[in-house]
Amino acid sequence: MVFTTAEIEYLAEHSLGRLATIRPDGAPQVQPVAFWLNADTGTIAIGGPALTRSQKFRNVQADPRVSFVVDDQSETPNPLGQTGRGMEVRGEVEIVTLDRPLIDAFSPETLHIHPRRIITWNIEEFGPASPGRLPHLQGFNFRDISS
Amino acid sequence: MVFTTAEIEYLAEHSLGRLATIRPDGAPQVQPVAFWLNADTGTIAIGGPALTRSQKFRNVQADPRVSFVVDDQSETPNPLGQTGRGMEVRGEVEIVTLDRPLIDAFSPETLHIHPRRIITWNIEEFGPASPGRLPHLQGFNFRDISS
Repeated sequence: MVFTTAEIEYLAEHSLGRLATIRPDGAPQVQPVAFWLNADTGTIAIGGPALTRSQKFRNVQADPRVSFVVDDQSETPNPLGQTGRGMEVRGEVEIVTLDRPLIDAFSPETLHIHPRRIITWNIEEFGPASPGRLPHLQGFNFRDISS
Repeated sequence: MVFTTAEIEYLAEHSLGRLATIRPDGAPQVQPVAFWLNADTGTIAIGGPALTRSQKFRNVQADPRVSFVVDDQSETPNPLGQTGRGMEVRGEVEIVTLDRPLIDAFSPETLHIHPRRIITWNIEEFGPASPGRLPHLQGFNFRDISS
């Protein structure tokens, strides 16, 4: 499984994230997007109305590398008093044409993010302190996903 | 003035945005960050604890181009029934060392975003339809800021 149980639960509770792509000149672009988790295949699907006419579509056609973040404020602070929590997924986009779009208003063309690195903060149970780590990063976890 | 009155009001009502930077290999990275608007100079300030030890700091040292988005859902839908609204600011970061950090827990080193392009959706008053524009983009505005 690409995602942990805690990550799947967190993503299932959220419908909006922010997707960063690379523009033709190498500069970044970031926008809010709705997303659908496909836990079985370990991918995150993103669509849109007239998606193929958007700059983000042209961006991922030229360079499939993206970063996608979902985050919010927890009602329960962690032991350090922090309420921020979330996940950043770095990966590569595969453009998939669906038989039926994610929702009726969307184009059938859909972006599927294949995670290569997953970084989370305050999503998993708060473990013992990591001595070498900065205090504000104690709640962080990250791992690489082999393709 | 870099920002319009509506943009200043919108940014003043929000404290959290998402900052996209470019990693050394050219891939994007995006994270939630607190921000402070400096309406007088037309810049957005972003700090952090141990900021200079963060990857985003190293990223902007190597390539100052960033994209920063602030968005939320409006309680009042626009005439098209859309509730999403927000701003994307594309620009360049200047690293500024403050006499006093933005907040006590932060490093004095601070990222000041100088906007080069500002894109907003459903922030300004909803104007007449633009015939050439896709329906879901009717509420969009964008403009370039000369440096």
